[in-house]
Amino acid sequence: MSLLVTGSIGIDTVKTPFGTSEDCIGGSAIYFSLAASFFSPVRLVGAAGEDCPFDFQQIFEGRPVDLEGLELRSGSKTFRWHGTYADNMNDRTTDLVELNVLAEAPPAVPASYRDSSYVFLANTAPALQLELLNQLDAPKLVVADTMDLWINNEKKDLLELLKNIGGLVLNDSEALLLTGNSNMVGAASEILDLGPEFVLIKKGEHGALLVTGKNEVFVLPAYPTENVKDPTGAGDSFAGGMMGYLAGENRHDFETLKKSMAYGTVVASLLIEDFSLNRLQIAGRSDIDRRYNELQAMMQF
Amino acid sequence: MSLLVTGSIGIDTVKTPFGTSEDCIGGSAIYFSLAASFFSPVRLVGAAGEDCPFDFQQIFEGRPVDLEGLELRSGSKTFRWHGTYADNMNDRTTDLVELNVLAEAPPAVPASYRDSSYVFLANTAPALQLELLNQLDAPKLVVADTMDLWINNEKKDLLELLKNIGGLVLNDSEALLLTGNSNMVGAASEILDLGPEFVLIKKGEHGALLVTGKNEVFVLPAYPTENVKDPTGAGDSFAGGMMGYLAGENRHDFETLKKSMAYGTVVASLLIEDFSLNRLQIAGRSDIDRRYNELQAMMQF
Repeated sequence: MSLLVTGSIGIDTVKTPFGTSEDCIGGSAIYFSLAASFFSPVRLVGAAGEDCPFDFQQIFEGRPVDLEGLELRSGSKTFRWHGTYADNMNDRTTDLVELNVLAEAPPAVPASYRDSSYVFLANTAPALQLELLNQLDAPKLVVADTMDLWINNEKKDLLELLKNIGGLVLNDSEALLLTGNSNMVGAASEILDLGPEFVLIKKGEHGALLVTGKNEVFVLPAYPTENVKDPTGAGDSFAGGMMGYLAGENRHDFETLKKSMAYGTVVASLLIEDFSLNRLQIAGRSDIDRRYNELQAMMQF
Repeated sequence: MSLLVTGSIGIDTVKTPFGTSEDCIGGSAIYFSLAASFFSPVRLVGAAGEDCPFDFQQIFEGRPVDLEGLELRSGSKTFRWHGTYADNMNDRTTDLVELNVLAEAPPAVPASYRDSSYVFLANTAPALQLELLNQLDAPKLVVADTMDLWINNEKKDLLELLKNIGGLVLNDSEALLLTGNSNMVGAASEILDLGPEFVLIKKGEHGALLVTGKNEVFVLPAYPTENVKDPTGAGDSFAGGMMGYLAGENRHDFETLKKSMAYGTVVASLLIEDFSLNRLQIAGRSDIDRRYNELQAMMQF
């Protein structure tokens, strides 16, 4: 089924203990689209500026990623992010953020995208997420990501958003911030009371937790990989793998959600093995399926 | 098969956001023994002082816990620990430590325990762990716990210990400290090079990771419970459930190790639902088996 993502397109400079990747392609919509494209056609809504050096046709060549919703806005500059990861590869400091085109009016959703069934609203101001959502006809499942900034500063909009989506994806510190509950099962239950059908709490290298409004609980460790070079985009590629699988299956019942999370973690485990999109771009569906089966075996007792 | 534990017996005062438990029974050998006793007979080696207010016969009444190795040393005082947990129930501050009898000569291993097949050396100075080990005939599996203090101050003894044990149990920050490797799969591999057949890295609420010398990997999330009142003893009861199961099965191949870890996490999940031993003392094997099956279902995809 049709899967739409709205999110950022970025020019990133990333430093990790393994090197520096300068002015490489990044942004939530990019990571999401590449990850999701293994499972389902993707429609990308996002904006870049006229300084954007990337050839998107080439980046997504041979993949079912529709770029009609990708706006190259003249007179604007592309979102830029510079970050440095600590030796532990978990803590990172942001060295520079230039919102640029992200601070302007969001791109419009093309008319041909309005019938999208599956929608992922990557992290941005909840008012913008709602505005994008309002341009769609009747999606079957809308999942949104959020962050501390909006929980702190745009809580009212965020609560409104929560009434209008099927799933919320956020990390553990954000779940604590939103609810004040440091127990993740408890925090998830409180968020479910605010509207969504399911809440997915990401814990980075510690995996993820899914809780549904039917009190179904799924716990998933991250695929344990020794080879981590650049964690940038892990969360967005996790979401991409997950939503791609759901759209491909055209279902989001509990059993399908669980499988989709496993695909998400596996895709993310490949992504982080190299800078930017490098590793995931050379991965095949067979690499993904092999790790999926390995993860399943590693969790069996 | 026979399972021996050597560890501490403590008088604890624990404060959590849910209340205070004053002068309650604690200590690694106590938590371990109660947890293990669901699966196997246990032989307890530990020392308390003459101030010890607990009736150990009553505490372990009806359970296969042999107390011949429990020494009540006259003229000595019992180990005391006071701790306070933060609201998140993960961070804790130690308010008071009185080593008392733990700073004296360790208790002797009774002659009748020397043929023990399974041995758990709870956390103490590695030289003492080796000394205790040397009193045993030919154990089939020895597993030891350790901590930052010994990694920092008694590294040579610890490295000697590692050559003489089958399994090491430690938490993620200790694995990082011991190896300098923040990737837990990598850290485990480095520890395996130091001697043990397997390394089990505990990540608290994030579960545990097992890596064996045969490159087998098992990842286990913690049983997700919303009802956490006092995490004290979680690690030792995890080890108790695990070692009890291994001794009960009289095997420690990979498949059995995986199951043993699941039992360990389930026993720990019960323990932390109340202060001290309160919850685990009223648990039955059926409570454990129910959660074991639930955990298995929660991880299935």
